[in-house]
Amino acid sequence: MDKIKAAIVGYGNIGRFVLEALQEAPDFEIAGVVRRRVTDTPAELTPYKVVTDIADLGKVDVAILCTPTREVEKYAEVYLAAGINTVDSFDIHSSIADLRANLDKVAKAHGTVAIISAGWDPGSDSVVRTLLQAAAPKGLTYTNFGPGMSMGHTVCVKSKPGVKNALSMTIPLGTGIHRRMVYVELEEGARLEDVARAVKEDPYFASDETHVMAVPSVDEVKDMGHGVNMVRKGVSGKTQNQRFEFNMSINNPALTAQILVCVARASMLQRPGAYTMIEIPVIDLLPGDREELIRHLV
Amino acid sequence: MDKIKAAIVGYGNIGRFVLEALQEAPDFEIAGVVRRRVTDTPAELTPYKVVTDIADLGKVDVAILCTPTREVEKYAEVYLAAGINTVDSFDIHSSIADLRANLDKVAKAHGTVAIISAGWDPGSDSVVRTLLQAAAPKGLTYTNFGPGMSMGHTVCVKSKPGVKNALSMTIPLGTGIHRRMVYVELEEGARLEDVARAVKEDPYFASDETHVMAVPSVDEVKDMGHGVNMVRKGVSGKTQNQRFEFNMSINNPALTAQILVCVARASMLQRPGAYTMIEIPVIDLLPGDREELIRHLV
Repeated sequence: MDKIKAAIVGYGNIGRFVLEALQEAPDFEIAGVVRRRVTDTPAELTPYKVVTDIADLGKVDVAILCTPTREVEKYAEVYLAAGINTVDSFDIHSSIADLRANLDKVAKAHGTVAIISAGWDPGSDSVVRTLLQAAAPKGLTYTNFGPGMSMGHTVCVKSKPGVKNALSMTIPLGTGIHRRMVYVELEEGARLEDVARAVKEDPYFASDETHVMAVPSVDEVKDMGHGVNMVRKGVSGKTQNQRFEFNMSINNPALTAQILVCVARASMLQRPGAYTMIEIPVIDLLPGDREELIRHLV
Repeated sequence: MDKIKAAIVGYGNIGRFVLEALQEAPDFEIAGVVRRRVTDTPAELTPYKVVTDIADLGKVDVAILCTPTREVEKYAEVYLAAGINTVDSFDIHSSIADLRANLDKVAKAHGTVAIISAGWDPGSDSVVRTLLQAAAPKGLTYTNFGPGMSMGHTVCVKSKPGVKNALSMTIPLGTGIHRRMVYVELEEGARLEDVARAVKEDPYFASDETHVMAVPSVDEVKDMGHGVNMVRKGVSGKTQNQRFEFNMSINNPALTAQILVCVARASMLQRPGAYTMIEIPVIDLLPGDREELIRHLV
């Protein structure tokens, strides 16, 4: 069987881990990496094409978007129109349905597939949340994150004027309530109060208790471990007190990257359009013979 | 929108809870109940048609099979050929792929849909198992059950000659190893050693440590609570030690029944054929507007 030709678009935290996940995947071929510039190429990319325009990579089946979340839509529109499937881990929960609606139109017009918001939350957690809602339709689900570094929130803070480097930690307070602890290295002359205001006004942070602190070195306080504790207590039919719990303790970008590679694979099996992970069968995430998977996993 | 017309086929433990789950579902209409005889009808069925032949219920969209597992295939073949979707919680893991292959042919020939092995294990657990395999492709998943009553195993014991009533308890020993504790009420003149041999030789029990004991009253030792503890430790890309855990503490037939109702709904959205739960998108399990569900759950 032909291998799936994947391009990595953007080579930051997620991009690096996507490279590793693709190297380990039996059914993928790495078409190359798309970056803003082709200088300063890290050693591990030596065996691969590094380009600024995806067209220079020849045939690409799927582009794995590892750009900042706010740039996902722009890249996806262009690639989908060029006949390339896209996958991303777009993580602004309130904008997911709109992104899906827009990319669905583009994908259908060009016979391509987009799978959006495919990391761990949104992403694999969304699948568990949906499953638990089915298992006990009445009740409450609480998704508690952390303690751990939120990559989306960190990128957001880094984009603010006056910020040289940043780390946004998510602290679970229970029942789905979180505190954001933001650590920033300020640029020369920048004022902490201006940065703090810009952060707190951003939609990423606006609804959470947020504390912004200056530190001399962000690198010295950074750890990419993360966690989830999802809890549902609900009613199946008329039977109360059904209890469910899902826990993870994971390296954050490594899991996001692995899920991205899985949905890149799944994108080859969907009809044209844009999908979130709850709209695709979980078996499509896996390589190998489907009947074997059914024998092994069901 | 027209409600989905569902028939309950078989009215034992699962059938009773399916009735409750259907009564609570906003998008279903109860077409009636199919039983071997229409005498001795319990009070809660008074508002519904109770028949011996599903044809007497008029139009039925989906038949929810609540028969013993070994009778599922026979009923499904007949109903699928008659233009009725079927769902079941067939639970003999080693025969699931074969059942699917057979029903897939029948369903495709008659434009109907079967969703098989849709309880909690096989069923919702299978979805979680598949998702975790995707999240960390290398590693081991252990599914630990109980302590709790296994309904499939209990029905199997009840079918043995000399058994008046039975209870099969599943005891987790860790790393996916289980002990089966079987409590039987013997019929007059039956010998425990004959019953024990018949039980231990059955494929349901053959690979587990099994103890068979006689008790004066099975009812006095019965509790339908159950539990699962599923654990995976694995590798995402090249990153080791990714840890995942899924726990449930539930009323067993209530959850099975709820899942059956969810897949009955999902059966209306699939193309003709037979499916396991890992082959259908989890969003299809839920009622309501899909864009709303995406906004709420992803």
